[in-house]
Amino acid sequence: MLSSIIKKGLLSNNPLTRIPRYASTSGQQTVLVVLYEGGDAGKRNKNILGCVENALGLPKWIKENNLENRLKLVVTSDKQGENSVVEKTLPEASVVISQPFWPCYLDNKRIDKAKNLKLAITAGVGSDHVNLEAACKRGITVAEVSGSNVVSVAEHVVMQMLALVRNFIPAYKQVINGEWDIAQIADKARDLENKHIGTVAAGRIGLRVLQRLKPFNVHLHYYDKFRLDKSIEKDLNVKYHSNVESLVKECDIVTINCPLHPETEHMFNKKMISLMKKGSYLVNTARGKIIDRDALVDAIKSNHLEGYAGDVWYPQPASKDHPWRSMPRHAMTPHYSGTTLDAQARYAAGVKEILENWLNGRPQREEYLIVDKGRVVSNAYTEGDATKGHSGNK
Amino acid sequence: MLSSIIKKGLLSNNPLTRIPRYASTSGQQTVLVVLYEGGDAGKRNKNILGCVENALGLPKWIKENNLENRLKLVVTSDKQGENSVVEKTLPEASVVISQPFWPCYLDNKRIDKAKNLKLAITAGVGSDHVNLEAACKRGITVAEVSGSNVVSVAEHVVMQMLALVRNFIPAYKQVINGEWDIAQIADKARDLENKHIGTVAAGRIGLRVLQRLKPFNVHLHYYDKFRLDKSIEKDLNVKYHSNVESLVKECDIVTINCPLHPETEHMFNKKMISLMKKGSYLVNTARGKIIDRDALVDAIKSNHLEGYAGDVWYPQPASKDHPWRSMPRHAMTPHYSGTTLDAQARYAAGVKEILENWLNGRPQREEYLIVDKGRVVSNAYTEGDATKGHSGNK
Repeated sequence: MLSSIIKKGLLSNNPLTRIPRYASTSGQQTVLVVLYEGGDAGKRNKNILGCVENALGLPKWIKENNLENRLKLVVTSDKQGENSVVEKTLPEASVVISQPFWPCYLDNKRIDKAKNLKLAITAGVGSDHVNLEAACKRGITVAEVSGSNVVSVAEHVVMQMLALVRNFIPAYKQVINGEWDIAQIADKARDLENKHIGTVAAGRIGLRVLQRLKPFNVHLHYYDKFRLDKSIEKDLNVKYHSNVESLVKECDIVTINCPLHPETEHMFNKKMISLMKKGSYLVNTARGKIIDRDALVDAIKSNHLEGYAGDVWYPQPASKDHPWRSMPRHAMTPHYSGTTLDAQARYAAGVKEILENWLNGRPQREEYLIVDKGRVVSNAYTEGDATKGHSGNK
Repeated sequence: MLSSIIKKGLLSNNPLTRIPRYASTSGQQTVLVVLYEGGDAGKRNKNILGCVENALGLPKWIKENNLENRLKLVVTSDKQGENSVVEKTLPEASVVISQPFWPCYLDNKRIDKAKNLKLAITAGVGSDHVNLEAACKRGITVAEVSGSNVVSVAEHVVMQMLALVRNFIPAYKQVINGEWDIAQIADKARDLENKHIGTVAAGRIGLRVLQRLKPFNVHLHYYDKFRLDKSIEKDLNVKYHSNVESLVKECDIVTINCPLHPETEHMFNKKMISLMKKGSYLVNTARGKIIDRDALVDAIKSNHLEGYAGDVWYPQPASKDHPWRSMPRHAMTPHYSGTTLDAQARYAAGVKEILENWLNGRPQREEYLIVDKGRVVSNAYTEGDATKGHSGNK
């Protein structure tokens, strides 16, 4: 599977990454794999690789590669509370594999407990559930499968943007409820065409969102710490903003596509939201904590914002009474945009690649590394901790 | 409003259409305008031009242009049954204005009754609610505001395609129901990328769908009676099929973007649907009657089709117990894709332009004409009648 995915060009195959740089491991290593429950769907559909039942295909991979003596797998969804499998296994774990959709928050306390931890792998993209500051201090490598689901998330952004602007959910509800009231829907249904749309960050995901929006004949905007190549700006006819405030003031629709780290935590607070145009829309598939939870609810309830969509929450899973579930005019989903069946095949392959390199003392691909040798090596993150408050309600 | 819309280039302004060709009307003409009820939304939001309350802006336009003595407006949503306003007004009406979202079916019987009828205008696109054969015989001109909402519909197609393939609706329902079961959603969530997508017809709407899908890195296909220019085919990298059967056999997602006329009525019957790939998706924002109602329900219930979306039904409004409302795995809406606030401004302006030309004996734009001087002049339609059965349940 891995080699066929690399052959298909879904992941780049850089020969440079084959040069040995690390010592290989010895003895049996415990790998703690924290995933969501698959239930009936997971038992039936072996392509849902990201659930406990199918465990990223690791059991089969270990067997096929005769790695039973080197890797001991502990696969669980049980991550809350002192008696959880996660808490009990952490002291012996050399590797923790987790994912954004059911994150195993590795805060200071847990990293202290995980005396043997050498490698934290994100099966997907986004390693904010790890306290990167603590990982740096302890020399823990943090790696994610960069690129494995950027297309999946970019598609989700375009879908939710269309759903909000075109007023899809209230229309669908009429169908289910046996109604037919066109004016009630049309009252808030608009075209995407001619609207001003801006992305906060134009990295792997943000850029793909811009590319997909281009033929919709919209006015594109972006903010990023790093400016896009002039030729890309010209091709997309996208306007650069040197700060987020300037972007939100001009846009009818804002989409957030930056990682969560201390600089972006609560970036969309009451003040930033107040700068957004009245009647504008906000779409966030990045991380829930980039937005101040209650400031958003207020902006929707007061009609300052026309609608909100996204699939990220804090903490995850979202509690039953999370106020975003019940606020008006949203088109939200649980966090799954990056875990389509297509994305799962890619990130499961990437996790095996990272494990294999680690076992054999081979370097990891540079684009996979977030923290390496005691420092943050990814441009997308800053050193620090964005894991606080995950056991609370905010 | 009309001139500003023309200036903005939303409608082309062809100087040729200014040459007089018809005799101008004399005396007061009754214009029967059949629209949907606006209710509270219509009273509050004057931009919902397509509802009874705002009557396409015609009352204001008549006043501003001192046309009170020439045009008598009868505006209603009451179109069913012998005592309806439509039935009572038809004998005196010179013009009937209707729209696809709340169609006034002009079948044989009604056209017989409408002895004075000279002009049938569709406020939007799609004149299948008029028996074109009868209109030809009687010399009634049939005109629609071609192009007024093609972008709106194309956006709707892309949105519903993404919603189906990414399993959006079941995910949204989890949010509302206080749930968090990622595997249950991922079980049927896929990316659009790499899928084979085909459009039945690549006219004004189908072509715009193809253009919007191109950057999603999909494999594009189309069938049409008229082949696209080679340079467009090459630019979109789209494969041509000389018949619909060939297209549906290759595609993971099929979208219908042809008008309804006798050749396309029930084109997607049991046989055609059986040729579609198992597990494929169907999106229809064209007309409900292009699909055999019960054959579709069977294909969804038997899992031959993975999902269905669209916003067209037959007849409209759909009855409370229409089986498409309650079948599994759909993402349907009532018919509103072409009546966004942006589209309403365009088609309301187009209706006034058609009325003005008619009053002054000026020719209509060629692209607006469906039936003229006793024959079907639009390439998109064939002579015939697709209005049968609108008062039934099928």
